[in-house]
Amino acid sequence: MSRPLAVVCVSGGMDSSVTAAIAGAEHRLAFLHANYGQRTQARELACFRQLADHFQAEHTLVVDFSGLKAIGGSSLTDESVPVREGEPVEGVVPTSYVPFRNAHLLSAATSWGEVLGAVAIYVGAVWEDSSGYPDCRPEFYRAFEEAIRLGTRPETRIEIRTPVISLTTGEIVRRGVALGVPFDKTWSCYQEQDSACAVCESCRLRLRGFAEAGERDPLPYRAGPGSGA
Amino acid sequence: MSRPLAVVCVSGGMDSSVTAAIAGAEHRLAFLHANYGQRTQARELACFRQLADHFQAEHTLVVDFSGLKAIGGSSLTDESVPVREGEPVEGVVPTSYVPFRNAHLLSAATSWGEVLGAVAIYVGAVWEDSSGYPDCRPEFYRAFEEAIRLGTRPETRIEIRTPVISLTTGEIVRRGVALGVPFDKTWSCYQEQDSACAVCESCRLRLRGFAEAGERDPLPYRAGPGSGA
Repeated sequence: MSRPLAVVCVSGGMDSSVTAAIAGAEHRLAFLHANYGQRTQARELACFRQLADHFQAEHTLVVDFSGLKAIGGSSLTDESVPVREGEPVEGVVPTSYVPFRNAHLLSAATSWGEVLGAVAIYVGAVWEDSSGYPDCRPEFYRAFEEAIRLGTRPETRIEIRTPVISLTTGEIVRRGVALGVPFDKTWSCYQEQDSACAVCESCRLRLRGFAEAGERDPLPYRAGPGSGA
Repeated sequence: MSRPLAVVCVSGGMDSSVTAAIAGAEHRLAFLHANYGQRTQARELACFRQLADHFQAEHTLVVDFSGLKAIGGSSLTDESVPVREGEPVEGVVPTSYVPFRNAHLLSAATSWGEVLGAVAIYVGAVWEDSSGYPDCRPEFYRAFEEAIRLGTRPETRIEIRTPVISLTTGEIVRRGVALGVPFDKTWSCYQEQDSACAVCESCRLRLRGFAEAGERDPLPYRAGPGSGA
């Protein structure tokens, strides 16, 4: 009997790549990626394509959330809001929060999953250690799962799985190394697309994660991986 | 003190136009419209523009859900699935159901509403009388409201309001007439854009509503408004 299908939201970052590896252990894979006018859109899409090849995804879909760019309200989609540098601050929603973005992603994953007959949606949200984005909270995913149950066909049964939500960035790196995740095909920097900046919130987290795990980050950094940590 | 702002999801149909009139009694208005590759997209968008003028919306936003067209699974977005003619059948999800479409709409309304500082999202969903779409169920909206509460900034407070959800189509027409809704600037037909077909599920419902209300539908019908009822 063939394994059940799961839709995996793959941004091209580290967390979703490790999540994809975890999903692939149990499921056939449908990889979903979203462009939403973010600064590093081209690099993230290139990583998505490479990851879909690597994980042998049976289906891929790239959606454009052009509305999110028009709506703005985030340093990732509005060039007039600078990307914050340094470590995230506890209890403060970062300027890189794209308002309710993950709901757009889950909606697309659900629509696609309903048509494909998927049983699960995997999302690489991280809450405990890093993001500070309200749409990465575990309770948000439970509420959205209930909305899926009520808002789709009676025969549709789609769970949301967030296997790395409570891990530290260091644990995510270790898990990824154990699963053979090709970290050279991932991208985390919020502001640069060739060499990572090493100083934005996302680079800081990534570098901290590799340092904690005692692993080497294969990505090129503008000022060398040591300088930003 | 200025009135609070509400985002109104305006498809250009009858239900959302009456909902907009209800919202306008209490709120300043931000009108949101979605193109999702539906057959009658151009006519619906034209109605949206006319309705935004009529109701003096302070803000308008048109978003493209290109992913929904790519995903398909509905007679509205997939030309190979015929539009069903005749009255909806109780307990059967219509072929015109666009998988989880209203979640995409609510996600866009929430992102925009969060940036604009809106206090409510109005949606013209109808459940009791007509649609049979799972994403028109009252419980779906309550679950999604909870997802909004949990998935947005702590200071964001956005309610979902569905003022016509329990009305019959006849009651919606009467309510619209009382509120001065310009029904000539609305569009309901699922398959034609110049003269309404009078036979698709949506035309049938609309004609039934006008008949029940004892009102004249100002729209042109291909075979005359009487023929389809």
